[in-house]
Amino acid sequence: MNIELEDGERIDDLEFDNLKIIQNKNWFCFGIDSILLSDFAKEIKDGSIIGDLGSGTGIISILLSKKTNSKKIYEIEYQKNMAKMARKSLCLNQLNDKIEIKNIDIKNLHEEFQSNFFDAIVTNPPYKKDGTGIKNENEEKLIARHEVKCTLDDILSQSYKVLKDKGEFYMVHRPDRLVDIISSMRRYRIEPKKLRIVYSNEAGEAKLILIKGIKNSRTELKLQKPLYIYNKDGSYTDEILKIYNKK
Amino acid sequence: MNIELEDGERIDDLEFDNLKIIQNKNWFCFGIDSILLSDFAKEIKDGSIIGDLGSGTGIISILLSKKTNSKKIYEIEYQKNMAKMARKSLCLNQLNDKIEIKNIDIKNLHEEFQSNFFDAIVTNPPYKKDGTGIKNENEEKLIARHEVKCTLDDILSQSYKVLKDKGEFYMVHRPDRLVDIISSMRRYRIEPKKLRIVYSNEAGEAKLILIKGIKNSRTELKLQKPLYIYNKDGSYTDEILKIYNKK
Repeated sequence: MNIELEDGERIDDLEFDNLKIIQNKNWFCFGIDSILLSDFAKEIKDGSIIGDLGSGTGIISILLSKKTNSKKIYEIEYQKNMAKMARKSLCLNQLNDKIEIKNIDIKNLHEEFQSNFFDAIVTNPPYKKDGTGIKNENEEKLIARHEVKCTLDDILSQSYKVLKDKGEFYMVHRPDRLVDIISSMRRYRIEPKKLRIVYSNEAGEAKLILIKGIKNSRTELKLQKPLYIYNKDGSYTDEILKIYNKK
Repeated sequence: MNIELEDGERIDDLEFDNLKIIQNKNWFCFGIDSILLSDFAKEIKDGSIIGDLGSGTGIISILLSKKTNSKKIYEIEYQKNMAKMARKSLCLNQLNDKIEIKNIDIKNLHEEFQSNFFDAIVTNPPYKKDGTGIKNENEEKLIARHEVKCTLDDILSQSYKVLKDKGEFYMVHRPDRLVDIISSMRRYRIEPKKLRIVYSNEAGEAKLILIKGIKNSRTELKLQKPLYIYNKDGSYTDEILKIYNKK
């Protein structure tokens, strides 16, 4: 297979089922949040149609193609260059039949897909509110990190439109936005059902949250046990090693 | 001092600063949730006026009278018999000057107290929605456990009215109600600022949540490290022993 890499692009080995991914060192590269989300969402039912909103490099969809028995996965990516790079990763992994990339704005999701289309949605959205934090970044990083193109409300309102009744919504995000997240999910009737909080280690504050919602579900949240990334000695915990397929 | 006990009443030693409390074995007796809340709220500023909504036996107010340098604490208790018993506990601890009991409905709080009266509010409210769970209990337990007399929205709307600007709100509750709690707090502009989740031990789901909100505050939540009650061997963790003043 002949894959042409652009300036700044490199092929990384995911060390999982021989999967590889192309990333551009100048743009947003995937982190542990995407790995944890794809693990959190691996309970998605067999035969599901999955939407990956703001898919970036495609890391979550690529991992979910192996971690679930889904029927079809759609990567939704607004950035043209990012979508182009992500397409090459699909070729590299021979996943063109399983995964399709839509280079569209999340805000137009309901125009591209009919109502009740998806069984599940996964998303690792921009974490920061527009107008907060440092923004001296290139456009690719800015859009991936800040809610300049797409807010939480956009994601939830669009997800509600295209999810089936009782369809599942999985998201990774920052703890400091938990109140915004829960408020927005309830506003758009994607009821939070499961919450897992990710801590660096046992001593510190939370770093990430993993949240699952169900469209039109009754209210009752399960707060799962914490997920720690590091042991006291700085090594990865057993659970993280297992998620990384190294145990 | 001559304290007359009614049928079912007994005096318990709090093993903290010589404090004692009267409880009725047929009613709702305090649990670890009240102990944890009074510890969570001990950061209340010196000189504060505190309201304890649904104060029951008075356990939280009694502990806060020693754990804080507050100016005055008001126990708000709807149940007449409970308020009567709680008054005896104040005599027993010579806390009549520091703590005052108002035998009123929380829904009438804004009639009893002027706007911007309290620096801080603490509450261990009924956990269960009216209409959920088993309700074959006596009236005292029913009112203490179920939202028959007072809902989350009642507590938050009244708290907003009587709290000062930037006044603090501390609550203990159940994890399965977290979405209701966060939604209600935001609705009544008591922004959640700090959340601590309490687990029985490292293996299981969450049991309780401790949440702090600030009236009219900007949005940003701190998710603190988890609080574990038991070690693997079933003994109390060091942190719990410290809270119980035994370490």
